[in-house]
Amino acid sequence: MISIKMQEQVQSGSVIRAMFEEGKRLAEIHGAENVFDFSIGNPNAKPPDAVNKAILEILQTDNLMSVHGYMNNSGYEDVRAAVAKSINDKFGTAFTQNNILMTVGAAGGLNVIFKTLLNPGDEVITFAPFFGEYRNYVKNYEGELIIISPNTIDFQPNLVEFKEKITPKTKAVIINSPNNPSGVIYSEETIIKLAAILSEKQKEFGTDIYIISDEPYREIAYDNAEVPYLSKYYANTIIGYSFSKSLSLPGERIGYLVVPNEAADFENIISAANIANRILGFVNAPSLFQRVIAKCLDAKVDLETYNKNRELLYNALVSYGYQCIKPQGAFYLFVKTPIENEAEFCQLAKTKNILVVSGAAFGCPGYVRIAYCVAYKTIEKALPGFKALIEEIGK
Amino acid sequence: MISIKMQEQVQSGSVIRAMFEEGKRLAEIHGAENVFDFSIGNPNAKPPDAVNKAILEILQTDNLMSVHGYMNNSGYEDVRAAVAKSINDKFGTAFTQNNILMTVGAAGGLNVIFKTLLNPGDEVITFAPFFGEYRNYVKNYEGELIIISPNTIDFQPNLVEFKEKITPKTKAVIINSPNNPSGVIYSEETIIKLAAILSEKQKEFGTDIYIISDEPYREIAYDNAEVPYLSKYYANTIIGYSFSKSLSLPGERIGYLVVPNEAADFENIISAANIANRILGFVNAPSLFQRVIAKCLDAKVDLETYNKNRELLYNALVSYGYQCIKPQGAFYLFVKTPIENEAEFCQLAKTKNILVVSGAAFGCPGYVRIAYCVAYKTIEKALPGFKALIEEIGK
Repeated sequence: MISIKMQEQVQSGSVIRAMFEEGKRLAEIHGAENVFDFSIGNPNAKPPDAVNKAILEILQTDNLMSVHGYMNNSGYEDVRAAVAKSINDKFGTAFTQNNILMTVGAAGGLNVIFKTLLNPGDEVITFAPFFGEYRNYVKNYEGELIIISPNTIDFQPNLVEFKEKITPKTKAVIINSPNNPSGVIYSEETIIKLAAILSEKQKEFGTDIYIISDEPYREIAYDNAEVPYLSKYYANTIIGYSFSKSLSLPGERIGYLVVPNEAADFENIISAANIANRILGFVNAPSLFQRVIAKCLDAKVDLETYNKNRELLYNALVSYGYQCIKPQGAFYLFVKTPIENEAEFCQLAKTKNILVVSGAAFGCPGYVRIAYCVAYKTIEKALPGFKALIEEIGK
Repeated sequence: MISIKMQEQVQSGSVIRAMFEEGKRLAEIHGAENVFDFSIGNPNAKPPDAVNKAILEILQTDNLMSVHGYMNNSGYEDVRAAVAKSINDKFGTAFTQNNILMTVGAAGGLNVIFKTLLNPGDEVITFAPFFGEYRNYVKNYEGELIIISPNTIDFQPNLVEFKEKITPKTKAVIINSPNNPSGVIYSEETIIKLAAILSEKQKEFGTDIYIISDEPYREIAYDNAEVPYLSKYYANTIIGYSFSKSLSLPGERIGYLVVPNEAADFENIISAANIANRILGFVNAPSLFQRVIAKCLDAKVDLETYNKNRELLYNALVSYGYQCIKPQGAFYLFVKTPIENEAEFCQLAKTKNILVVSGAAFGCPGYVRIAYCVAYKTIEKALPGFKALIEEIGK
């Protein structure tokens, strides 16, 4: 009785649910404190104090009808102006409120932009490993996701294969840096080359190809690593941002899209995205949190929370013999499994009460994603299990 | 460069924008206080005090990681349980948290349920006059909206035509009571007949046909009018609710779906709706406001704010000679235009600085919708214009 497409979703969804149930089952047997769940990217750094301070300030001083009321589907004008100014101050850009559309998180923003751009059969390219939800977001609008195979040397995009796979039907390229699941930041060198390839192909095919830069992890970068701001390298860039990680507000669903004036068909994109936000049922980004983030544009979570986890887990795993590159961003390690079949590795890990996600979910088999946005103690307690695991496999 | 579907949207969207711009232009000429905008259903009753009290309480006592964090895509279990209990207390139903899915407003909920149910070409029936966004919500999933012509005697659904238009492809019927734009509450007699027709047709065709009851105005009912709870009359009922009007929180995007155990394919619907909420990019209903509404389930806005407006505007318009039924719910009057062409009437109204919406937008030409969720003073000041308008037309 449910739709055919959703029947397929329910069937594949049951695999994830089974894992979740397995976690609960293990917790009942061994106690929740002895089950090490590295499967979910749920931020564990606490939101900056500025967030609740902003909420209180707004409730005390602002007009409540306006705080909780409707506004333009693109968001409050003053909030969008504040967001634009903040980006300009950080990256030397020249955006105004007209370039900003407030969205229900990055997930909402990506759906809005795909609804805006895609005709059935249009191709969207992404680089493995990639956030698995892109499959669904593109399919929602009958587009086709074209996956470029992973470069497992350093997890920078495989630009040779990329160039070969661009066709006249390529409408967009979606990238995600710092990357989920690899934690890698795409280098400026990568971005320059990628932009050059796209410019060449646009000319060859007489088409416009948009880069959609999905940036929920922009602020989660360690060692003062720079994350290039894409619109400075390529005119047809659209940026999807989220405050889920920078302010640890994933449940509040607040983010934005940036559409630069320089993007081809700018006027229509921004008008259509405004309408798409409405007709897809988002209507507008949650109103109180629009006002909140406008007051918190300079705040961010304490990165040291994640960095300590990163150092502990990375150094330990490498010392045990695991192969993994040290990521400069996000809060994931993407680890080569010591046996080829990573699904089997996930099963073995469970015998140590360790839950990790198979790389196949990210288009990169032979790897697992370990989300280290967990308590430091959880990592400490899980390490003996990781050690025993690779030793047992090595025997 | 934008998609073909969105090109059409941008073109028709420009009409609404033109009206908005016209309002701004009039405000510049005559002063905002002398322009009477009855075009938008933006609640003007202030949110009950319970709302901000709940926010403060939550920020002071709850775990902030949990307040702003991810949860099950269907929403917090305790919030869903509280919503279920509140419905049970009011309507004698027997729902549990398993029947409730928290959504990004009713608009989000309707998109989730259409995504869940519709295959391309499936038909969804609605009764004119109807909320125009249904066109888009159904089209988003390649369904076809079948419109039953209005019964302008009392604005109860036209059940004769309804029965004729049900086909083996009818997947759902979407109703909205209290109705936007007519303000009419579908009577218990209507609901009983409607359910009987559907039961008969389900048997005839061997199909399941769902009633989707869109209920953002359930709490906005005057004169102690009863709004029948649909699931008590028909098993295949799915309810979409929103707190936008009951608590004046339209910007916060918070609502829920109810899927009763008795609905055919219940297990799959609830699983698929959970997944649809995620993959459409909602991910989850905003987390703080989930917790807020759980504390405000017995609160509602002061209905007298709207009722006073209703009495003033209805009595005045009827005394001037306008034809209109007195609505028992929502905050709209649906008025027969004294000239047949209601678009022309809208233009004439503008000469009196009065903005109203053409009935064609709701599938009911020859009428206009007047949203009276405005300041009492706005109505008082607009009345001479309404009077002059019908007098001039009558000449």
